[in-house]
Amino acid sequence: MSESELLIVYRVQASSDEVEARADALLLEQTVELSRRALHDPGLRGLTVGRVVAIEAMGEDDFRVSLAQPRSATADDPAQLLNVLFGNSSLQPDVVLESVTVTDAQALILGGPRMGLAGLRRLAGAENRAMTMTALKPMGLSAARLAALCHAFALEGLDFVKDDHGLADHPFCPFVDRVRACLEATLRAAQSTGRRTRYVPNLIGSPETVLRQARIARELGVEAVMISPMVVGLPVLNELVRRHLDVPVIAHPALGGALRIQPRALLGQLFPLYGADAVIYPNVGGRFSYSRDECDAIARALRRPNVPIAPALPTPAGGIKADKVGEVLGFYGAETMLLMGGSLLESPDETTLRRRSRQFVEDVHRFPYVN
Amino acid sequence: MSESELLIVYRVQASSDEVEARADALLLEQTVELSRRALHDPGLRGLTVGRVVAIEAMGEDDFRVSLAQPRSATADDPAQLLNVLFGNSSLQPDVVLESVTVTDAQALILGGPRMGLAGLRRLAGAENRAMTMTALKPMGLSAARLAALCHAFALEGLDFVKDDHGLADHPFCPFVDRVRACLEATLRAAQSTGRRTRYVPNLIGSPETVLRQARIARELGVEAVMISPMVVGLPVLNELVRRHLDVPVIAHPALGGALRIQPRALLGQLFPLYGADAVIYPNVGGRFSYSRDECDAIARALRRPNVPIAPALPTPAGGIKADKVGEVLGFYGAETMLLMGGSLLESPDETTLRRRSRQFVEDVHRFPYVN
Repeated sequence: MSESELLIVYRVQASSDEVEARADALLLEQTVELSRRALHDPGLRGLTVGRVVAIEAMGEDDFRVSLAQPRSATADDPAQLLNVLFGNSSLQPDVVLESVTVTDAQALILGGPRMGLAGLRRLAGAENRAMTMTALKPMGLSAARLAALCHAFALEGLDFVKDDHGLADHPFCPFVDRVRACLEATLRAAQSTGRRTRYVPNLIGSPETVLRQARIARELGVEAVMISPMVVGLPVLNELVRRHLDVPVIAHPALGGALRIQPRALLGQLFPLYGADAVIYPNVGGRFSYSRDECDAIARALRRPNVPIAPALPTPAGGIKADKVGEVLGFYGAETMLLMGGSLLESPDETTLRRRSRQFVEDVHRFPYVN
Repeated sequence: MSESELLIVYRVQASSDEVEARADALLLEQTVELSRRALHDPGLRGLTVGRVVAIEAMGEDDFRVSLAQPRSATADDPAQLLNVLFGNSSLQPDVVLESVTVTDAQALILGGPRMGLAGLRRLAGAENRAMTMTALKPMGLSAARLAALCHAFALEGLDFVKDDHGLADHPFCPFVDRVRACLEATLRAAQSTGRRTRYVPNLIGSPETVLRQARIARELGVEAVMISPMVVGLPVLNELVRRHLDVPVIAHPALGGALRIQPRALLGQLFPLYGADAVIYPNVGGRFSYSRDECDAIARALRRPNVPIAPALPTPAGGIKADKVGEVLGFYGAETMLLMGGSLLESPDETTLRRRSRQFVEDVHRFPYVN
């Protein structure tokens, strides 16, 4: 690709008679949003009018359409980029966004993961093994109750303990109280174990709220945070990591699954491009819908970005069972963080929870690292 | 509904044997995100654990599931509300969000449209007729060229002339230059016609960019703006209207169509709840996919909100043809703004564009207002 063009790939349902016209209409819809006969100015070509690069037949009435769109159409703006990728076309049921390759210059501007896979491995002291994460829930527990859970997990050596993505600044569990108590719990556990678990608070709200939470979290000593980019807005994530935040961001897929964007493109390409260092996604076989191939594609896209940004950390989650850890890591390899929540939290008592946590940690640590 | 519960309605694909369990799992997924056996604390009931209100069979393996979720689970936060509505469940392919009724207190907090249908009618001086809007495009034209278009439209009496939603702060058409030139064009036209067309700039970017654009627009005298809530983030829209903006917001559906949320719920209920005064949506029969029933449902939801917020202005768009104006208004009635872009901009020359614009305005103004 030229340095002045983005490559955007879609799957389009159309008959072979119609697909050329459909591809051209798709090309124009994302930028000039007018038919060719309304484009009176030839100077638009290359400025805001791109070109259809390829149309491949994939099956009956199923085509892969590759478009080159001028970088200039995006204004190098994180929000306007979304319009060029899938603004109006998201309203058209015959189109799915499959893959995005921005220009190298745009990747540099958006920035991608600042710590990424390597930074999170260093932070966790996990240079040659997979990593572990669990979640604090259910929503409704007090800060003290969640901190007690956090303490138990930390005693058993989890690398990261994150808030559930639905933990906001609830009156029954205020953000400041929760962050303070959970951090304290990880420090207290470290005094007895000699190794530090990182507590990862969930930042959620409108931009000013997210900024305030980020500032509080950093003042209290938080070393990683979680954000749901589709809930707060992808451009909000990008502004946060470019301007306001010096710790890694773990991205949660909430509200993102229903988009007619393939998971690989949204979670594997766009989330890290906008700055996520690790990306949580539903693992195959859990209570969500992603296939084995989709999960593999997400992990590969995160580890081997198609633009010059740092690799991000694949973090499969959602119904990973305790006895499946080896199998899951066999599939993904050790450059992975496993997020196990329910399987630990369903323990009937703290003794069981600690035993299961310890088992989870041991199973992951035992898995051989092959680079 | 009680004042402490939201009513959320989904369509769920399940067999009749399974639907009760599926509804209960859906209920828990949006808040505590744990199975019942992991909920050791009975105090969560009513705090973060809601209840299944109704399950209605709609067809084979097709159920309408109505949930009551505790208001306390949302923390009255605009981002966390999205999690309670459709956070994790958006990742599950068997669920579609159909309708949302927040509590009256939440509606007051989110605020809804500040000017809404009535305010836009007053602004346009259109107390007893439908309204007209068109769009400035194609992206790629200079500020001066777009302003010339704006001038032509204003001379013919359009009520609103909006930026295309893809017009950002492009170097070939900087935001400040465009706003200044287009406003000037409307003022110049008003000197000869005696009536004012409102130019509506598109605010787009990460939150700081949107805020800066809002400030500039107001300083220059803009009286209405456009925002794409799914591109910039719904919570960003809400913060903007609650804290920073004193002019009406016209919402654009870009990036919003592909969500597994029925258009009535997303465009008809959530956009105005978060503060949009008018909502643009693809009209039936254009190049998008909404049915006649969906369009009717969107318009009704906007005009008759299900919570105590001001009515918002339905703004059908997308391929409305010049000879269909009467038909479209016959369907929607006069409490409507018609957005016609391509049909005007495809004119081969300015004389034709002005003639078509005049015709559009006359056709809309002629339509009788029946309250």
